[in-house]
Amino acid sequence: MTEPGRLNGESNVRDVGEFALIEYLANQLPKRTGQHGVSIGIGDDAAVWQPSPGNSVVVTTDALVRDIHFRLGWTDWSSLGHKAIAVNISDIAAMGATPRLATIVLGLTGDERVGDLGRMYEGIGDIAGAFGVAVAGGDVVRTPHDLMLSVTLIGEVDPDQVVRRSGARPGDLVVVSGTLGASAAGLRLLESPRTAATADLLVAAHLRPVPRVALGQVMHEAGVTAAMDLSDGLLGDLRKILDASGVSAGIDIDRVPVLPAVRALFPDEWTELALRGGEDYELLMTIPHDRFDGLRDRAKVVGATVTPVGSITPTDGGPTLSVTRDGRELNAGDSAFDHFAGHPS
Amino acid sequence: MTEPGRLNGESNVRDVGEFALIEYLANQLPKRTGQHGVSIGIGDDAAVWQPSPGNSVVVTTDALVRDIHFRLGWTDWSSLGHKAIAVNISDIAAMGATPRLATIVLGLTGDERVGDLGRMYEGIGDIAGAFGVAVAGGDVVRTPHDLMLSVTLIGEVDPDQVVRRSGARPGDLVVVSGTLGASAAGLRLLESPRTAATADLLVAAHLRPVPRVALGQVMHEAGVTAAMDLSDGLLGDLRKILDASGVSAGIDIDRVPVLPAVRALFPDEWTELALRGGEDYELLMTIPHDRFDGLRDRAKVVGATVTPVGSITPTDGGPTLSVTRDGRELNAGDSAFDHFAGHPS
Repeated sequence: MTEPGRLNGESNVRDVGEFALIEYLANQLPKRTGQHGVSIGIGDDAAVWQPSPGNSVVVTTDALVRDIHFRLGWTDWSSLGHKAIAVNISDIAAMGATPRLATIVLGLTGDERVGDLGRMYEGIGDIAGAFGVAVAGGDVVRTPHDLMLSVTLIGEVDPDQVVRRSGARPGDLVVVSGTLGASAAGLRLLESPRTAATADLLVAAHLRPVPRVALGQVMHEAGVTAAMDLSDGLLGDLRKILDASGVSAGIDIDRVPVLPAVRALFPDEWTELALRGGEDYELLMTIPHDRFDGLRDRAKVVGATVTPVGSITPTDGGPTLSVTRDGRELNAGDSAFDHFAGHPS
Repeated sequence: MTEPGRLNGESNVRDVGEFALIEYLANQLPKRTGQHGVSIGIGDDAAVWQPSPGNSVVVTTDALVRDIHFRLGWTDWSSLGHKAIAVNISDIAAMGATPRLATIVLGLTGDERVGDLGRMYEGIGDIAGAFGVAVAGGDVVRTPHDLMLSVTLIGEVDPDQVVRRSGARPGDLVVVSGTLGASAAGLRLLESPRTAATADLLVAAHLRPVPRVALGQVMHEAGVTAAMDLSDGLLGDLRKILDASGVSAGIDIDRVPVLPAVRALFPDEWTELALRGGEDYELLMTIPHDRFDGLRDRAKVVGATVTPVGSITPTDGGPTLSVTRDGRELNAGDSAFDHFAGHPS
């Protein structure tokens, strides 16, 4: 065991003490105790946080596991830290809430280099700082084989402003923010590198997604009836809104916003990437037709685009999702991303 | 992929869909949405919870990893679920707070049997129900090798009732609840089974610890100045209070409460088990001498015993911890439980 003062970035985790490591990692983070109502951070049994009076607390949790959700040859450590926090902030954003507090469980084999974990915590600190999130504690545990980050993100929201998955109504537009498929295209480029001027942009979309917090916060006021973040692909995720709301929907592929770079690099696959690729961390929303212009204007103010891609329809014997291209209906099939059923990404 | 309706306990996780599995596991839990202010549970992007007006939110997180924190040959699945929640509730109890909400990340290799995970969730549901905790969501992820449960527990507390680690003052008594060493003794019995009438009791102390929530809630009113839960052993954990409070302490081994069964089965080791064994999940507290009787009376009301084991002393050049036995001072050494420094448990 190395004393905290002698810990350096070249050390392996197994050669340093657990508490020295936690102290080293905490030092990579911005100092946030006392901000955002966080009164006790890393170093007590639990973090203590005071939400604004009357607000509800919103909680989400998600984990990234080596060789399942990321590969160390494909991501730098800072981006890995960024993404672990970003995907959780995205869930908070999808509820219309403001992210405040994160706790992190780090599962380490002991073979990791301390300096790499430090860079990971720099990435965590950068995105946490950018979104006003305090990293308020966590746990470092040993794992026999699998490097793992498990993040819980806690936010707050006026209970009247919460946007759920269950509010979609027939006649609503189906709307997505940003563009779809860039993250999946970036993953393909990591799997099979190609020289392309746009490759870095697409890889960055995969490694360092930016959650749509500001857009999420205007959803309720803009009249959005249901929302979720796009982590598993448009078709799979929209089904969840349909199931929760008891409605059906039709999507027009020709209206789905896809970057020209994605279409150019993947001429035969861009539809698949955009509809099923997943990990876009854009917002999927439903909203009455007559409120869409207002949403578009509010989105513009916060630097986001929103695009209608289809409509909610009444259900007849269970939610269905139809997909049309060039006016012709396709068979959407079973589209949910499923880690255990062999989806490749 | 099996349809939800056809999922049965004999299936392996890899043969069922992620969403069917989540639905099956959620069905093992008591229905709690709508209770304790939890308005959205499993099935949306995030759980939503309304703490009582003015209360602070308390957050802790801890993970159990196969072959590090548990062995499947030594624990039944229900106990594994119990313990994963109990160790987190214990951290909430140590702050004087009330546990409310849990989220769970389950890392599965795919080889697990669905029925075993169902029993684990029954164990989770039983302890969650007993302590009024809503399991409000989580995530199921695949791991290449390591079965893992990562739990985040969220509670609430009147901010004036929070008991931190940093409040210990010279002259305070050092007090522990219950007895120490039973969990470590139980672990030894799992490692090397022996026939003994008390073996089941000790093994149960290891596998199914009961967090001291009710005692934690009376700590502030009783005058407790600092507290934490005993997860890493008395000596290691007390050092954390000393460091946080900037004080020293002396412990008298002869006063440490240890079950007769532990002394009888481990005549040469019971001191080690009691001082360094860890995983007792009792409360370690400091309190002024003249308040101890009041704490003892309040503890009795909630079914707990409290025992003074030493005193806080002024520090002179940094916190020190002295240990005496039969009036003679021992060398406490470096006693912190450290997962990376080769502690066997």
